[in-house]
Formats: sequence, structure tokens, C-alpha cells
Amino acid sequence: MQNLSGDIDAIVEGCGPLHAPTEDTVRPLRQQVFEHVRARGQVPRVAVAKDLAVSPASVTTITSELIESGFLEEVQSRKQGETGRGRPAVALRVRPGARHVMGLKLADRRNTAVIADLSGQVIASAAAPRELQALTLEQLLDDVDALMHKVCAEAGLTPADLSGLGLGIPGFIDGTSRRMLWSPVLQARDADITGPLEQRLGIPVQIDNDANLLTLAELWFGVGRTIPNFAVVTIEQGVGMGLVINQRLYRGARGMGMELGHSKVHLDGALCRCGQRGCLEAYVADYALVREARTALNLPDVEGPSVSSLLEALLGQAKSGNPAAHSIFRRAGRYLALALANVANLFDPQLIILAGERMSYDYLYANETLREMKTMALDTGRAPPRVEIHAWGDMVWARGAAALALDHLTESMLGHAREMAAQ
Amino acid sequence: MQNLSGDIDAIVEGCGPLHAPTEDTVRPLRQQVFEHVRARGQVPRVAVAKDLAVSPASVTTITSELIESGFLEEVQSRKQGETGRGRPAVALRVRPGARHVMGLKLADRRNTAVIADLSGQVIASAAAPRELQALTLEQLLDDVDALMHKVCAEAGLTPADLSGLGLGIPGFIDGTSRRMLWSPVLQARDADITGPLEQRLGIPVQIDNDANLLTLAELWFGVGRTIPNFAVVTIEQGVGMGLVINQRLYRGARGMGMELGHSKVHLDGALCRCGQRGCLEAYVADYALVREARTALNLPDVEGPSVSSLLEALLGQAKSGNPAAHSIFRRAGRYLALALANVANLFDPQLIILAGERMSYDYLYANETLREMKTMALDTGRAPPRVEIHAWGDMVWARGAAALALDHLTESMLGHAREMAAQ
Repeated sequence: MQNLSGDIDAIVEGCGPLHAPTEDTVRPLRQQVFEHVRARGQVPRVAVAKDLAVSPASVTTITSELIESGFLEEVQSRKQGETGRGRPAVALRVRPGARHVMGLKLADRRNTAVIADLSGQVIASAAAPRELQALTLEQLLDDVDALMHKVCAEAGLTPADLSGLGLGIPGFIDGTSRRMLWSPVLQARDADITGPLEQRLGIPVQIDNDANLLTLAELWFGVGRTIPNFAVVTIEQGVGMGLVINQRLYRGARGMGMELGHSKVHLDGALCRCGQRGCLEAYVADYALVREARTALNLPDVEGPSVSSLLEALLGQAKSGNPAAHSIFRRAGRYLALALANVANLFDPQLIILAGERMSYDYLYANETLREMKTMALDTGRAPPRVEIHAWGDMVWARGAAALALDHLTESMLGHAREMAAQ
Repeated sequence: MQNLSGDIDAIVEGCGPLHAPTEDTVRPLRQQVFEHVRARGQVPRVAVAKDLAVSPASVTTITSELIESGFLEEVQSRKQGETGRGRPAVALRVRPGARHVMGLKLADRRNTAVIADLSGQVIASAAAPRELQALTLEQLLDDVDALMHKVCAEAGLTPADLSGLGLGIPGFIDGTSRRMLWSPVLQARDADITGPLEQRLGIPVQIDNDANLLTLAELWFGVGRTIPNFAVVTIEQGVGMGLVINQRLYRGARGMGMELGHSKVHLDGALCRCGQRGCLEAYVADYALVREARTALNLPDVEGPSVSSLLEALLGQAKSGNPAAHSIFRRAGRYLALALANVANLFDPQLIILAGERMSYDYLYANETLREMKTMALDTGRAPPRVEIHAWGDMVWARGAAALALDHLTESMLGHAREMAAQ
């Protein structure tokens, strides 16, 4: 070894470079086969072998086991334009009724729930209004329990028929410990809520941040079908974000990334409900608009109309030429444009999806805002990512929660990647 | 199917959910084995089998092939405290001299190059000063060629002994087309530079953004040995960023993410050299400090001292109590704190590394700035990520470029993941 400069010596230590393959994303082949069949809806064995680059013999062995276990079933393949001569082709599909899971989304004003079968299809949904206040753990358990019975009745099932619950909560979830660190809908901080829920309901419970679950719904049922890298930005009471990289949800090292709503867009800026200053939320969320709306509409500081009627009134004023009302939306739109440009500059997704209830208004995603985003995205010589508006209703969040439950159910039925990966 | 609400119907279309496993990160086992041996330095066969969860028989077959091909070799294992009785244990290691690659970093003021052997060890390094001006493609080819001959001479090799070149360039590289979209060191825009380089040098050439290559060096030779998720923020002429997720470099969908320097920290803020307003760079980069330094130091607007002596003078003034000079660094430090808080809030890395030449100053990463970053990171109930300062010299960038070349060389020698994955 010769001519090593000092700065290299400093970084060279020990044996060789560590670039150890930690293939912790490798799933056993039987899980890959099952998920591939689920993704394709129905598919012949030979296509599974081709798509996964596995020998047809291995696929036959694995699918026989999966059929025997009741997870897959054979169906006559429907091909358009087939003459009907010869043997009809046989395809595989997930046996929908083999398992059922519930997805539930806790929100500020209305909780929603769905039941999905093993193939991912929703077979029932239900909702329950709730008071706009933080719950005790006991109230949470009661609410979830009641909604579970309601949605089970809709589906013609009993709670004993369920194999898992996926729960979406606004706020911060520690992805490693699965503890709920903080949520606007709960009084407790840094609390284990999956443990008490599992005890009460008797089924495995998974929790995640609600924006992640909307992103999971897009991954399983929406744009994820064709686009492997995309970001979802949700604008509701707060601003959330989810990121899909190579068809996997990215949560950050501790499951606490993607807090776009609390990324700082102004040093020492407007006060955010998180207690800090200059967060994006403090410019574009409900409460940020409302606190300026009172000034623009000359309303008294106390009492008064609900948030949504206040925002409707403000929007009406802005459209009919009230410059103060207009400037509130303009500013919110410009900060949203800045944040979307930052998402493009930092994450470089193929597509940015704007989603959430707020998308039923039109001021934030006006063409003006999208144009502004393009002027603030870095001029690399390539067009900035496309932006799409998805005005899903609130039931889709629960569907994402069901996808989370299915994901874990599949893993526990067919997983144990480390020991299987060797085969 | 019952009780589907309208919003779910909208998202349910076609067959089932698409969650198709696209295992494009799966590498064939022989590549995994080779990289594992390289990572471990030297390791017995039985440990490879255990670490990769593969049968010892498979490992024996694969390593025999790799030894026969000259990529691996057997060594007597050194174990501390061994008595020496019985047969000495045999371990495997990469045969260092089997291949050599060059890593080269183009920078504003000095180009650097290293030669690394197949095990990743640097065996020679060289540097060449350059004029601070954008090059023509012809000048670039000449510069790279000349530095290649220089570093080969240092290593006692000829250019014909090299199996690849990794090239680090500041600016934007399209990760898909491998085209250089824009760089401060080159006159051309949206140009193919790997093609002409390969033609001139006769070896495969890989290019990447320089911040990505510094991150790759950390992944292979630095903190990546023990930490699978981290961010690197570089502060030099500009501000760059690299991100490692699960021991893989994340480049964004088109290889153009991580542009932290051009994330907006102020709507309609200070002018950036990219032509837009409010970019982080416009508050913390060299040129941003220099343009205010002239005001603080009462210097004429034209001519004058070099950038580095100007910054040294400014720092001296700030330390001896000049409030204008101090406020320049304070503001830069506060914007850096804001950006680091955003990195924590958005990416949730385990660790943030601050690196680059600027780290030899102390104003930007003063304890004050790091404290401020913590107050601006979201209070989730968990501590924000640790921040480390790595004041590597500029040779480490070239070492990252060599790692890029080795990565591609390994892939082309042992790769073709898709067809191998089936076995």
C-alpha cells in the first residue's frame, strides 16, 4: 500500500469495506407467490413462474401447499375470445373467504372502518361520528369495539371471524416499539395501545400513522399498480405525507419520517399547534386559515361558526373579491407550492398525489399553485414530477388500514423470511 | 359484496390489489457471497453460510467457482489465542490484485483520484489543481486522462490494468439515462459524458453526483459498517445530501433527489445561484457568505481577496466582536439548523453526518447550531437523530467514486440478478 493520504487513513480501519448484504426485505418464495397471485387477481401457474423467474416445478410445489392450506384456489381462467375447444385453462386466485381483517381509521370527527377479505376486497364498511376531543384509552377501546361490532354486522360476520385489525391514527407512531407517541385524538403520550386493544379484541393489532395508511391504499389499490415511486401529501386538519420507494412504504429509520407538515418553511415563522414556529401546517392547515379568517371576516374572537362553515364563508368572500380573504388562500397556496417543490427536490418521486378532505375545496390545488410549484422546483433540465389530485372520501383511509392488517397477516401465515430465504 | 361506499368504488378497479413483488434488488447468491466476504475482510466458509442463511454445500460450490475465477482466495485464518494444534482454519478473502478500478472526483479547485483494488483498499492517490472555470468536454477528457496516467504511475500500474472508472461530479446527474444534466464544472448541459470517456479511456465509466459518492464512501468504509440508515449533508461550494436506507444509497426515482441545497427555506428569500429565491444554499454556501462579507468588512465591490481568505477574515472579525460579521455566521448557522431539523423531520435517519471542506471552520456546526436544530426538530417524544461532524479531506470523495466503480464491476462480473434469482 502506498501513497495513502492522511485523510484516507482516517477512514480506513479494520478489515475491508462493510457492504454486507442484509437482505431483510427478502420474503420466502411462498409469500412472494401468494402476494403475486393476490396482486394479479387471477393468474396461471406458468405466468407466476415467469413473473418471479422461478422454475415451474417450484411454483407447482408451492401452490399445491397453498391450495391445501386453503389460501389459494383454482378457477377456470376466463380469456376473452377463447373458442372453448380443448381443456379450459386453469388459473390461481386467493381464496377470498379464507380470512377477514378489519381496517379502522381514527379521525377528529368521524371514525371509519372496513372489513376486507384475504384478496383485499372490501366487503363491508361502517362509520361512527365522534366528539372533537382527545380520548382516554378506555374510551378508545370502547369506540373501536363498538365500531368492530357494527362493521361485522354489516358483513354478516362475528368478531371471532376476524384475523387482525389495522388501525390508522393521526400523530406519531414509533415504528420499532409500535408505541403511540402522540396523537391529537388521544390523551395519553408514549403509550402502548396495541397491547390493550389486542387484549380487548382478541386479535393481532397493527397501528400506523394515518398518512402512511392512505399511502398504503394507493400502493395496493391505486397508482401503486403501475408506479413504483410516489409521494402522497395529505391536507386535512394537519398536513401528512407518505412515500413509496420501489413499491415499499418508507417510514424512516424509526417510523417517524415524512413529517412534511412540521418541516420548517419560515425561520421564526407563524406559530404551529406543535408549539414550534414556521411549520408548513401553520400556514396551510385548517386552524391556520381559521385564525386569520376571523380578522378577514370581521368576526368576534370568541364563539362563532364551525370550522367548515367559517372556511366556506371565507372562500365565498375570496371568490367575490374580498382582498383580505383572497390573500389568506393565496399565501396558503404559495406555501403549499413551496412544500411540494421541496418534496420534488428532496425525494424526486415520479408522482406527487394530493389527497385528503381539503381536496374538495379548490383553492389550494388551483392551477396557480401547481404552476408556482413548478417554478420553485429545481431546474434540472427534466420536468418536475406530475401532481395528481385524489379526492378520496374518508373510507379509503380505513381501506389502507385493512391493507396493513393483511400485510401482517400474510407475513405471519407465510413469512419467516430469514429461515426460508436459504432454500 | 355489500355496503361499498362510493369513494371505495372509485378506488376499486380491475382485479385485485397490485402489490407485485418486484425483487429488483435481489442479487444472485454468488454476488451476495462475494460481497459478504469483501465486507468481512476474511471469513470462514461456515460463517458465510450462517450469515447468509444458505446451506454450507451451496457456499462451497459457489466459493469454489469464485476461487477458480480468481476473485476469492483461501488464507490461513488468524485467530487470537489459538493453540496451533490440529489443522489451521481456512478463511476466504477477496483476491485484492484480481482487479483495479479508479475513482475520480471533479471539483471546483482540485481534482482528486485514487486506485482501489478489488477488496476496496486504496493503493494509490493523486491530485491535480485546476482553474476555477467550467470545462469543455474536450478539456474534461484531457484532465481525466492526465490524472489517470498520474495515479496509475503512483500505483505502478498502466491504464490497461484498470477495469473501470467511477466519476464524481457536482451537479445533477440523471440516474436513468446516466446523462450529466448540469454541473458547475462543465460548460455543456444535458450531455453524455460517460460515452466519450469510455471511448477515450477504453474502460467502463460510471458517474454520480459527488454528494452521493461521499455517502457511498461512508456506507462502504465509514459509519455504514454499523448503521444502516443515515443521511450525509455536505457543505462546500454548495450544499449536497446523500441518504442511505437499509444499507442502500437512495437516489430518488430519477437519481435527482436529495437536493437539500435547493430546498426552499424562505418564500421569496435570498437569491440562489440556481436562479431561484430562498434556497438553503443562498444562506449558507460560500458565495452567500462572501456577498455579505464585503458589506460587513467594508470592502470594495470589485476585485479583492480570494474567497477563502475573505471567509477567514470574516471569521476573525466575528470572533473579535464585529456584530455584522457575527450576524452573517449566526444567520447561516440558524438556516443550517432549520435544514437539519427538516432532514430529521422528513427522513428520520438514525444519524446525520455533516461533511465537507467547510467542516474545517467551526462556525456552522457550533454547538449553538446543533442545539437550535434540536429545538426545531419535531418533539415526537424521542430524541432527534445524532449529528456527527466528519472533517474528511477531499480524497475520500474519490474513494467513494472508486466504490461506485467496484459496485458496478462486481455486478457485471457476478450479477445478472433476474436470471440468477430463480436458482
